[in-house]
Amino acid sequence: MKIIDQIKSPVSNELEKFDSYFRSVLKTNVGLLNTVIRYLFLRKGKRIRPLLIFLSAGLVGEINERTYVGATMVELLHTATLVHDDVVDEAKERRGLLSINAKWNNKIAVLLGDFLLAKGLLIAVDNKEFEFLQILSEAVRLMSEGELLQIQTSRENDATEERYFEIIHSKTASLISACCEIGCFSATDNFVARGKLREFGKLLGLAFQIRDDIFDYIGKSSIIGKPVGNDIRERKITLPLIYALRNVSEKDAKNIVSLVKTNKKKKDIKEIINFVIQNNGIISAQTRAKELVDKAKAILLDFPDNPYRQSLFKLADYIVEREK
Amino acid sequence: MKIIDQIKSPVSNELEKFDSYFRSVLKTNVGLLNTVIRYLFLRKGKRIRPLLIFLSAGLVGEINERTYVGATMVELLHTATLVHDDVVDEAKERRGLLSINAKWNNKIAVLLGDFLLAKGLLIAVDNKEFEFLQILSEAVRLMSEGELLQIQTSRENDATEERYFEIIHSKTASLISACCEIGCFSATDNFVARGKLREFGKLLGLAFQIRDDIFDYIGKSSIIGKPVGNDIRERKITLPLIYALRNVSEKDAKNIVSLVKTNKKKKDIKEIINFVIQNNGIISAQTRAKELVDKAKAILLDFPDNPYRQSLFKLADYIVEREK
Repeated sequence: MKIIDQIKSPVSNELEKFDSYFRSVLKTNVGLLNTVIRYLFLRKGKRIRPLLIFLSAGLVGEINERTYVGATMVELLHTATLVHDDVVDEAKERRGLLSINAKWNNKIAVLLGDFLLAKGLLIAVDNKEFEFLQILSEAVRLMSEGELLQIQTSRENDATEERYFEIIHSKTASLISACCEIGCFSATDNFVARGKLREFGKLLGLAFQIRDDIFDYIGKSSIIGKPVGNDIRERKITLPLIYALRNVSEKDAKNIVSLVKTNKKKKDIKEIINFVIQNNGIISAQTRAKELVDKAKAILLDFPDNPYRQSLFKLADYIVEREK
Repeated sequence: MKIIDQIKSPVSNELEKFDSYFRSVLKTNVGLLNTVIRYLFLRKGKRIRPLLIFLSAGLVGEINERTYVGATMVELLHTATLVHDDVVDEAKERRGLLSINAKWNNKIAVLLGDFLLAKGLLIAVDNKEFEFLQILSEAVRLMSEGELLQIQTSRENDATEERYFEIIHSKTASLISACCEIGCFSATDNFVARGKLREFGKLLGLAFQIRDDIFDYIGKSSIIGKPVGNDIRERKITLPLIYALRNVSEKDAKNIVSLVKTNKKKKDIKEIINFVIQNNGIISAQTRAKELVDKAKAILLDFPDNPYRQSLFKLADYIVEREK
């Protein structure tokens, strides 16, 4: 069995039930919209977010109707973000299939994203899940702010470790943290547990993004689905580079930073990647991700041992060890 | 005094107070975001939606804190839609200023739209205005569905009067209807009044869109801010054309419809516009808009006479008589 399937096993029935619930929610009267949504379902993601929600709920209590509602809201929101992202990045592919903007056009992709967002809201409102809504709207605000802060930072070129963590907390960890909190809250009113799972999710989310940023240096483009060096091309200074810069003289650091700032040729990208690898940027970033995951796992020790907890442990490891 | 300022006069203080409240809500820690938002405030719209909310509240009771919350939610949502629309339509200008996507880029525009949407949600959640949220998320769903239905219709070329009204109800009237309902609901619990104002807003919204669609045939592009014939270029068959087609032989109708379907030259656009004018398309559509406004005004007669009602009467007329 693949490791991800092992992790999913305590909630595999629930994830299947969730899938058909999710599909049924998205039926509309507009034929074109149904066609686009059917296409969307062809590319099944890893469903990490619903998985976190179901495991968090199981960890603290019984998985129930509210857990499904929370998972549906998050998956709608996350899908909306991906569809909008592909418009923004002019991405032609996602998970081996044409993106919505490539297969149809930008207009349909933006409208589909808005429709999915509205559907997520309506599900919350219909089920009177106002706390879920609060958690998620805060996450959406942070996600858009985080992306904008990242653009600002690469324009001003003032990437520091502190700023890097501020950005990835907003743009990635906030939603993963929200998943764990919502899953927990769907199954218990215990506020202490809720705070702990929020923190667990935050640490996991930070590690997840660091691992993603490492892929930009050493991933196989055929596996991660985008070319290596993409971030450098967009002048994004991520943790591996920040750590590598610390290990060299001020002069060498300046040279690399100014190379990142310019319009780069293939040769320059290669040079920056080699610089990061040779100056321990990858190893240091990976160590940092591992530390965060260990801190996250320590939080889980406060919960009773059960199959959900075992899966969350494995999921935490998977997040820093995965190859895509 | 300009007619729109006359209409605003019973709530001009409130609209001013709303303006500074709206600005204060949008302060963030991200410098780039603040810069973009400041730019957004340079192009002040007609603020028809907040105006409708304040007038509807005043009509049935006292304007209060909840009215401001409702107006802020709607204006955030509406602004988000405009910013996304400009990305989708690749519009370079709005209200005489560069669009956000033109001045910055698509990425910043999509993220700004998402940020504004999230802010609108957070304001609802923070103020526990869940009914406002329900009304508005239903409107957002309808708006995206309506736009998609319009695309589908122009692809399939099955524009009928019935389909046209279905589209404009979703994409335009739903939000205007929501404004009137939210304004009313902010000031009274009276469900009958709420239903009446929702219907009033719907009729007004339909008339508003018909008037907009008429501009596409006879507007002055320097006033309406986009070239005449835009809809025809995009194969959108709107009410003036639908009505004109009824007044000619089946053969003539077929010829015009197939002209609309093709890639058109300037000369073809002119021919279609002239066809619509000569076959009473404009006059019939304008008559229809006027009928809807008269029905809307009849609803107002059920409310006691006061300055708010007088303004709503004038606003209804303004909507079908305006030149931009």
